[in-house]
Amino acid sequence: MSQAMMQKFPQVEHSQVTGELRETFDDIEATLRVPWVAFACRIMAAFPGALTPAWRVAKPHHATHYAERAADSLRRNAVVPSRGLQDPRPKLKELRWSEEKIKELILVLDVFNYGNVKYLLLITGWSEALQGRHPRGKPLAPEDAAPLPRGLPPGIPTMHHMVEENTATAEVLGLYERIKAMHYHHGPSSDYRVLANYPDFLRIALDDVIAPVVRTPEYDMKQRDLVAEAREWVSGFPGPVGVGPEVLMNTCQPHEIAGLIGILFMSQRFIADITIDIIRLKQAFDGDAAAGASPFFNQDGPTGRT
Amino acid sequence: MSQAMMQKFPQVEHSQVTGELRETFDDIEATLRVPWVAFACRIMAAFPGALTPAWRVAKPHHATHYAERAADSLRRNAVVPSRGLQDPRPKLKELRWSEEKIKELILVLDVFNYGNVKYLLLITGWSEALQGRHPRGKPLAPEDAAPLPRGLPPGIPTMHHMVEENTATAEVLGLYERIKAMHYHHGPSSDYRVLANYPDFLRIALDDVIAPVVRTPEYDMKQRDLVAEAREWVSGFPGPVGVGPEVLMNTCQPHEIAGLIGILFMSQRFIADITIDIIRLKQAFDGDAAAGASPFFNQDGPTGRT
Repeated sequence: MSQAMMQKFPQVEHSQVTGELRETFDDIEATLRVPWVAFACRIMAAFPGALTPAWRVAKPHHATHYAERAADSLRRNAVVPSRGLQDPRPKLKELRWSEEKIKELILVLDVFNYGNVKYLLLITGWSEALQGRHPRGKPLAPEDAAPLPRGLPPGIPTMHHMVEENTATAEVLGLYERIKAMHYHHGPSSDYRVLANYPDFLRIALDDVIAPVVRTPEYDMKQRDLVAEAREWVSGFPGPVGVGPEVLMNTCQPHEIAGLIGILFMSQRFIADITIDIIRLKQAFDGDAAAGASPFFNQDGPTGRT
Repeated sequence: MSQAMMQKFPQVEHSQVTGELRETFDDIEATLRVPWVAFACRIMAAFPGALTPAWRVAKPHHATHYAERAADSLRRNAVVPSRGLQDPRPKLKELRWSEEKIKELILVLDVFNYGNVKYLLLITGWSEALQGRHPRGKPLAPEDAAPLPRGLPPGIPTMHHMVEENTATAEVLGLYERIKAMHYHHGPSSDYRVLANYPDFLRIALDDVIAPVVRTPEYDMKQRDLVAEAREWVSGFPGPVGVGPEVLMNTCQPHEIAGLIGILFMSQRFIADITIDIIRLKQAFDGDAAAGASPFFNQDGPTGRT
């Protein structure tokens, strides 16, 4: 691995995986009803025999209305009040963005806002399980146990290309460095790698929407609240939602298991940050209430559920 | 690795290491002037070729008065106001503790309170470096650049035995489980493993001092503030204080480097938690001002420094 290669945080891209791991990646997307596999999962895929067993245990629980309800609650609570946040539309129009392109961009935000909270729940469950803590195991109420539809909700587009560090322009690499530095993050999230297809917007987003709040006490408190809430929802699942360390003993060395525990702890906080960020971008366009609402679920979900 | 073995988080004990790693362990203790090697370092020692190179880069910086001043500031700021905290002495006396034994216990707290903030600074520097972020590199003022004495300050006792999960009594294992669960931690810190030599005190400490605050918003905010402050101090070092990922390319696979980055991120927050906890135990005995002060430095430090 050269210094240049470590521009990119070690992970396995969806396009690189084959066989059982490919099936797991595809199944995660179809079950969570999102068009991407989270950064944390792509890192975990690099640990021998870790991702697929953890996913097998988690899958049935994340295919329930309980999980969707948890995601809805986390999304609502991820809104940091948007005092003084400016609508990015005028600046985008100055940059000759069409209404159509702005709509396309907001749909990208909606997709991530639909899924980020689901991954926060998944990673929290895995992190807790790998540290030996499992849900209380109380059965779900029938309406919570009901299965979700499988596959993307209508209206969710195929995900745009995630721009790779190894092939990105100098402009995008500069934006990635800035994102990592302002967040104290280990790498750019899937979200930012997709937004890198719109570098002119991404620069405005960082300047006007993210930089003023990131790592402030208010932002960090929100991250903390989301992690705490995710743990609460995880503890309400009716059984284990991840594997304990003993399951990895045949495929990982002890220090690799330790490393994976660290990765999940870090990713849990990372994805809470990103959840706040992308909801905040939506707030800038469409206000706090729209940003905290589920962008897709009601379109094909059961009646009466919000 | 059996399920029973994963009762213990993967790490290398000081008593197990030999050769170069042993020298590194001993040198960390002598340079930081503390009688133990932190949990995070013991985990890091299990990653091939990771600990010694990182320590070599860090060592000269942590042997300065700047580092001691950073530690003093972090310690002062780690005090969560002790509203209503009860002095444990009456309960200990009911348990027939002598004045001498209470003094011995408080000295153990002092030792950890002297060193925990030093390890917070060390781990923060390593975490930042491994994520590719290095200090601004501004030279230190001469009084900050001055070297610290080497070795334990007078009055610091040899460290007591750290009770191992694998040989602990059922009572101690139960206390460890409780500590891990209430903190959402991956294992018991060195501090708690030493306090496990006094299980009757540890139970009182958890009930009366730690459980009422741990993971409350106030506690989490204090942890956040300590991490943010440690980053600030790290950025003021005059040069790199840790290795970047490229240094590990010959000894670690990419996913192991990822894992180590996760471990350091997690350990940074873990040690901030433990810093708050042990200072809080001292607060219960001797009040907030004493708990926030350096317990040892002035005894042999240069004059005029507080």
